[in-house]
Amino acid sequence: MAEIKLMRRILASNDALAEEQLKQMKRYGVMGINIMSAPGAGKTTLIEKTIAAIKGRWRVWVIEGDIQGDLDARRVVQHGVGCTQINTQGACHLDGLMLAAVFPAIDLKNLDLLIIENVGNLVCPAEFRLPVHYNVTIVSTPEGSDKPVKYPLMFSKSDVLLVNKIDLLPYVNFNLNEFTQAVRKLKPRVPIFPLSSVTGKGLEKWLNWLDTRIKRHRKR
Amino acid sequence: MAEIKLMRRILASNDALAEEQLKQMKRYGVMGINIMSAPGAGKTTLIEKTIAAIKGRWRVWVIEGDIQGDLDARRVVQHGVGCTQINTQGACHLDGLMLAAVFPAIDLKNLDLLIIENVGNLVCPAEFRLPVHYNVTIVSTPEGSDKPVKYPLMFSKSDVLLVNKIDLLPYVNFNLNEFTQAVRKLKPRVPIFPLSSVTGKGLEKWLNWLDTRIKRHRKR
Repeated sequence: MAEIKLMRRILASNDALAEEQLKQMKRYGVMGINIMSAPGAGKTTLIEKTIAAIKGRWRVWVIEGDIQGDLDARRVVQHGVGCTQINTQGACHLDGLMLAAVFPAIDLKNLDLLIIENVGNLVCPAEFRLPVHYNVTIVSTPEGSDKPVKYPLMFSKSDVLLVNKIDLLPYVNFNLNEFTQAVRKLKPRVPIFPLSSVTGKGLEKWLNWLDTRIKRHRKR
Repeated sequence: MAEIKLMRRILASNDALAEEQLKQMKRYGVMGINIMSAPGAGKTTLIEKTIAAIKGRWRVWVIEGDIQGDLDARRVVQHGVGCTQINTQGACHLDGLMLAAVFPAIDLKNLDLLIIENVGNLVCPAEFRLPVHYNVTIVSTPEGSDKPVKYPLMFSKSDVLLVNKIDLLPYVNFNLNEFTQAVRKLKPRVPIFPLSSVTGKGLEKWLNWLDTRIKRHRKR
């Protein structure tokens, strides 16, 4: 039983850190999103396309979570936004303590949107609250339609779902109806946006969703 | 420091369990493989194609690791082999303790190959030793060539790498040379077999590799 108590305490302290970070963001009307997916589902490409579309309108900062290396951060900074790299050194997710270490260096006063790219993993990242207002989960069509059945926690914690790589639909076995039905059992009203970050198809619905929410946070 | 000691003790006990399970397998000349990959890379389809190819020649048992549900086990048993389902109830990997719970029910006397399908995850499963002789990691082409750089532990723990979904190569951004170079930095001599479980292309090299090794274990 000792382990269970310890785990609760760790999660409670993680949540407290996230709450404190959210308070600071609220002071300056900054919105945060946490982007999660399996490895290779297209988180970084989506972030790049999103920045390219909104950077004239909103000020963006990206936190890149990777086990090691800075491949994704190098891609992101080419779009002219600030970026902080967190190397988890083996850990399979980002948590509030890692965020606390980099948070003071982010200029919240001159920011509208904080994008956190989590470690590629459909399991563990869903367990740790981060200083964000929305969890964005990406599933790519080559992964198959059964992912919500197999990784239910991730889907039940998601506020918006992006079905990426729809340009590959003719070549892979992905059934959007099956996928949607499986998601609806876990989270009846979550928005699902099929899109392709590579061709740009469907991106506008995601960008509209994002834009509407950033505006709301600026007004608070 | 207490946490580090605790983690070491957990891993040590995991390894001891795996060793004990391996001893029992050795008694009957049973070989074990642990199949790992990101979600949706094609573990189950590869297992199905492998069983279909070898079941007249070798006796196979499959242990299916999933967070919840039995979708994959239902697919596997249709091929006429025995299958044990482990539901991890949220945990992101299989470990020796979970294996110990199901191990006594496996008829090792009438078995040549134990296939363990791990939870879909490129991070955590690599940290826990299982009763197997080889770790088999699958990467699928839509995931991109940078996975060895981002998930180094998984690749350094792999004894054979399968690059799956080569039928999608014309439509995705995957560079086999880049991938191979990144792998070689972590594990210079690991065999890499590009294949497609769907079309069957390249499967014979993987099946030959497997067949040679099962034979060796039968002779011991």
